[in-house]
Amino acid sequence: MALLVQKYGGTSVGTVERIRHVAEKIRAARRAGNEVVVVVSAMAGETNRLVALAHEISEMPDDREKDVLLASGEQVSIALLSLALKEVGQPARSFLGHQVRIETDNAYGKARIRNIDSTKIVQSLQAGEVVVVAGFQGVDEDDNITTLGRGGSDTSAVALAAFLNAEACEIYTDVEGVFTTDPGICQNAKKLARISYDEMIELASSGAKVLEIRSVEFAKKFSVPVHVRSTFAEVEGTWLVKEDESMDDVLVSGVSYDKNEAKITLVRVPDRPGLAAQIFGPIADAHIVVDMIIQNASEDGTTDLTFTVSKTDHKKALSIVEQTLPALKAKGVRVDTDIAKVSVVGVGMRTHAGVAAKMFEVLAREGINIEMISTSEIKISVVIDAKYTELAVRVLHDAFIGKQGNV
Amino acid sequence: MALLVQKYGGTSVGTVERIRHVAEKIRAARRAGNEVVVVVSAMAGETNRLVALAHEISEMPDDREKDVLLASGEQVSIALLSLALKEVGQPARSFLGHQVRIETDNAYGKARIRNIDSTKIVQSLQAGEVVVVAGFQGVDEDDNITTLGRGGSDTSAVALAAFLNAEACEIYTDVEGVFTTDPGICQNAKKLARISYDEMIELASSGAKVLEIRSVEFAKKFSVPVHVRSTFAEVEGTWLVKEDESMDDVLVSGVSYDKNEAKITLVRVPDRPGLAAQIFGPIADAHIVVDMIIQNASEDGTTDLTFTVSKTDHKKALSIVEQTLPALKAKGVRVDTDIAKVSVVGVGMRTHAGVAAKMFEVLAREGINIEMISTSEIKISVVIDAKYTELAVRVLHDAFIGKQGNV
Repeated sequence: MALLVQKYGGTSVGTVERIRHVAEKIRAARRAGNEVVVVVSAMAGETNRLVALAHEISEMPDDREKDVLLASGEQVSIALLSLALKEVGQPARSFLGHQVRIETDNAYGKARIRNIDSTKIVQSLQAGEVVVVAGFQGVDEDDNITTLGRGGSDTSAVALAAFLNAEACEIYTDVEGVFTTDPGICQNAKKLARISYDEMIELASSGAKVLEIRSVEFAKKFSVPVHVRSTFAEVEGTWLVKEDESMDDVLVSGVSYDKNEAKITLVRVPDRPGLAAQIFGPIADAHIVVDMIIQNASEDGTTDLTFTVSKTDHKKALSIVEQTLPALKAKGVRVDTDIAKVSVVGVGMRTHAGVAAKMFEVLAREGINIEMISTSEIKISVVIDAKYTELAVRVLHDAFIGKQGNV
Repeated sequence: MALLVQKYGGTSVGTVERIRHVAEKIRAARRAGNEVVVVVSAMAGETNRLVALAHEISEMPDDREKDVLLASGEQVSIALLSLALKEVGQPARSFLGHQVRIETDNAYGKARIRNIDSTKIVQSLQAGEVVVVAGFQGVDEDDNITTLGRGGSDTSAVALAAFLNAEACEIYTDVEGVFTTDPGICQNAKKLARISYDEMIELASSGAKVLEIRSVEFAKKFSVPVHVRSTFAEVEGTWLVKEDESMDDVLVSGVSYDKNEAKITLVRVPDRPGLAAQIFGPIADAHIVVDMIIQNASEDGTTDLTFTVSKTDHKKALSIVEQTLPALKAKGVRVDTDIAKVSVVGVGMRTHAGVAAKMFEVLAREGINIEMISTSEIKISVVIDAKYTELAVRVLHDAFIGKQGNV
């Protein structure tokens, strides 16, 4: 018997009707001869309702208590899904984070899983039950409730698959898999049959929303085969797998975009060693994540320094930068929230030159100006004027992937 | 420093505004020099919402999973109250049942508390924090979530007071204390300053709703002084204490009533040994609680056997009885749902004769027929036609307690 870990998100268990549908799917997997461990999120809307309650009481809710509050959402889902499974004749048993000791560090709100005690899960599976585990939550070594942050249930599922040595981790969601780009923007977008962990990490970090990056990192670390697929359609989705040689043949696997960043430029700062540390130290202290950083020295000994942060953080980042301006002797600071980051991702770039050149040429042909460039081994990102986002995604997708896709 | 355990019910924490109010009250108790452990119920309406969800999925929800579901309600309250306490500058820390190991047996839905590990509570109090514990929930020895049944948070509070050796357990509720009878029916009803555990148990079991009977039994067993008082008015409530000699002077402490019972009569059953067992065995097997039982033998060797059950159970009880009718050779069965049980309660009855006689006389004077009578050492209950309930309560209250009350 193969062991499957299945994860169902908030939309998939958003109503009693949908919970019943999920129960049927699980029973089918069980009857097909699999052992099944299920991870569920809170019912759609529930986490937002709880966050709103917390913020009604406190502008900056205490992290420990907020985690206690939020973890209650998954508690409701596991109980309801277990009831629904029993109702269709499938023995089931729910477990909270503390009951199977999903042990994490104590970073409330963004905890990392350290260990899972599989004893009870294995016992329950041996008793013929489907095991239903609350996603998103764990406990630290002192039994405090912790939560894993956004998309945490994906990470719970992948971690369980890793610790239980499952055959696969199936992530059920409201899309059919990972696409070469957003089908809402580009009608030629194709579902990928397979994608490597590294490519998925780059796509997730450059705007693709199908999976949270931490769950993919976890899957990569423990080589967990992840199958992203639809709760509502009975079709194969996309497999996240280890990179193999055949993948090198594909130059670009996907085109992603992110409109959620803002660009901050320090104008004509006298250039000297330690400048970057002076700027980005205080920003890091404020827990603001900086994405791209570009620095260009000019002839006169000054430099323009540009970086991007998420739009939600840009006002805070700006006020921090403004405080350092006098010390830096910069001429001024500029902010632009009307930008988009467009990225092409593919492991084939490692062995094929010319992807960047082709990307710049394709954009230039449409008259789209490139404001920033950032590259990794398997990704090229450019920042452009937000109004060209859809156009850029379409022409890049056509140029690199085409109508047939690369599936 | 005195240690107080305070319990706030669902109405008291029913909205964010009320949670803030409760936080202020707790802070005041803390500033008055007390250490405070708080027990809270789920926000008003939440438990009903969760029960409805369970019943949407399953007509007979599995007990274990239902407890997992229901326990989430208190998890929300402890987190929100802890946030509210921190917001008013009072350090606080929430604990779930499993975190302070409120260990129970494994009778889901009506578990009994066996032990509480006070280690973390004491540590938290020593750190100057208010300890906020989820009421109603515990874990069995295998870490399964259990709930204590209706009014379970009262029991949690009393049990914590017992295990922590608290100076008192304050039960905050939406009434000002325990009254000599329902003030909604009798304008002479007076708040009792003190009442013995035994009297409170009899009042609770005969219709008074202020406290669940199990919490009072627990308080009696461990001699926990319980103070029932209002969340919304700053006045002394009613103390539940050990019986002392002065209490004997009071003949009747309270008059209670219960309109939630139905009467079932088996007519002219041939009387023989084992008859009662034959009838009540199957009813007990169906987990139906029988309250009063009256059997009167008649001259012809048959007997009329009458008993009362809660109205919600009476149809189930009736169908069980009907199945046994042929074997019993009874003439028939009658059901009456239009009845009320009216009771007078007082430890003084132990030493004073004539309470029953006076009670019957008072009712007779008003032309109220008595259908059943049941007595304990400190209580007399009669079943009457439901339409006379309010009248009976008023005349009995006037006769035994009077306008001055016995406070």
